[in-house]
Amino acid sequence: MSDNEKKVPAVVIKRLPRYYRYLGELIKQDVKRISSNALSIKMNVTASQIRQDFNYFGGFGQQGYGYNVEYLYNEIGEILGLNDGDTTVIVGAGNLGRAIASHGAFEKRGFKLVGIFDNNEKVIGTVINGIEVMSVDNLEDFLAKNRVDIGILTVPKAAVVETAERLVKCGVKGLMNFAYTELNFDKDIAVENVHLSDTLMTLSYKIKQNKN
Amino acid sequence: MSDNEKKVPAVVIKRLPRYYRYLGELIKQDVKRISSNALSIKMNVTASQIRQDFNYFGGFGQQGYGYNVEYLYNEIGEILGLNDGDTTVIVGAGNLGRAIASHGAFEKRGFKLVGIFDNNEKVIGTVINGIEVMSVDNLEDFLAKNRVDIGILTVPKAAVVETAERLVKCGVKGLMNFAYTELNFDKDIAVENVHLSDTLMTLSYKIKQNKN
Repeated sequence: MSDNEKKVPAVVIKRLPRYYRYLGELIKQDVKRISSNALSIKMNVTASQIRQDFNYFGGFGQQGYGYNVEYLYNEIGEILGLNDGDTTVIVGAGNLGRAIASHGAFEKRGFKLVGIFDNNEKVIGTVINGIEVMSVDNLEDFLAKNRVDIGILTVPKAAVVETAERLVKCGVKGLMNFAYTELNFDKDIAVENVHLSDTLMTLSYKIKQNKN
Repeated sequence: MSDNEKKVPAVVIKRLPRYYRYLGELIKQDVKRISSNALSIKMNVTASQIRQDFNYFGGFGQQGYGYNVEYLYNEIGEILGLNDGDTTVIVGAGNLGRAIASHGAFEKRGFKLVGIFDNNEKVIGTVINGIEVMSVDNLEDFLAKNRVDIGILTVPKAAVVETAERLVKCGVKGLMNFAYTELNFDKDIAVENVHLSDTLMTLSYKIKQNKN
């Protein structure tokens, strides 16, 4: 992997998974090389944007020859840390937690779900995607015995801050938060908030613009 | 509402729901005015960024006096089209569809869920959040009789393009797509893709950076 001396802007980081995903599809189609132009058309980003993005990581390509698809795919996967075998737990086994536990794409990307927790007696002991739901009371115990990198928070808003703090205290380094609140931790804890109604509001804005 | 002659960048649009959400919380706390500085600390955006963002919509504030919270909240809500009473349908009543149908924040933001559809005989006729799941065969019939602005797609990847096309053909103007594929429509159809494993990959990247 190329060294990362330049600070990579957040928007570039956000595009990496899309590149990765698209390159994975090209591999399936047995495409060996692709130019930044061809890639740009498919990805709806300009070719110069793609070259700029890739330059943060040393470039990857030979001008004029295009990119080696498999090499690029593997390099981006490496940059994204997808080969690190990150483990995840889900706290909150409601509909959303269940949907995520059953989400095949997570495992495909190298993430391993190792535990699901809930506080509801009716849910504890049920099996989702081959994993038995544990009581959230056992969280610390479980985390002491198992390395967990990422906590996926699908608990109600009122419980999310406390749950997040419990996970972080036990060494979890990344949080994916679905509750409608922002989580604040030191920089060494990575947080991604998924606010579905923000997305719906953005959609509403675009619809309104299109009407005008 | 101020006129929108300047093209508003996508990143600014993405921030509007966050401003809106945060201002809503300030109203609950009975805060009447707020400076761009105070807003910036809470929102983790620079004050000049906030002023720049708001300038796209005519500014909203009086320099030195801060912003009137309720006025700003209402203006941003108007810009986002939240007063338009946009209606939604969910297609795909699996775990994710159920989670979204039960998501209280959507209604709070002015969106009205008017229908849920599925193709599974066991699911059709069940009631989610007060709404009876209909057969997806009735989609066109329902859309002919009911104005629907937004289609929320929680169907499997293999079904998403066809389902999206059926919705658009019947006059749906916006799509929120959870399937792991990109939808391509003309510009008059607004699309927001929610790719949960992209978010997980971004998180993985950040965790890896923090380790180094």
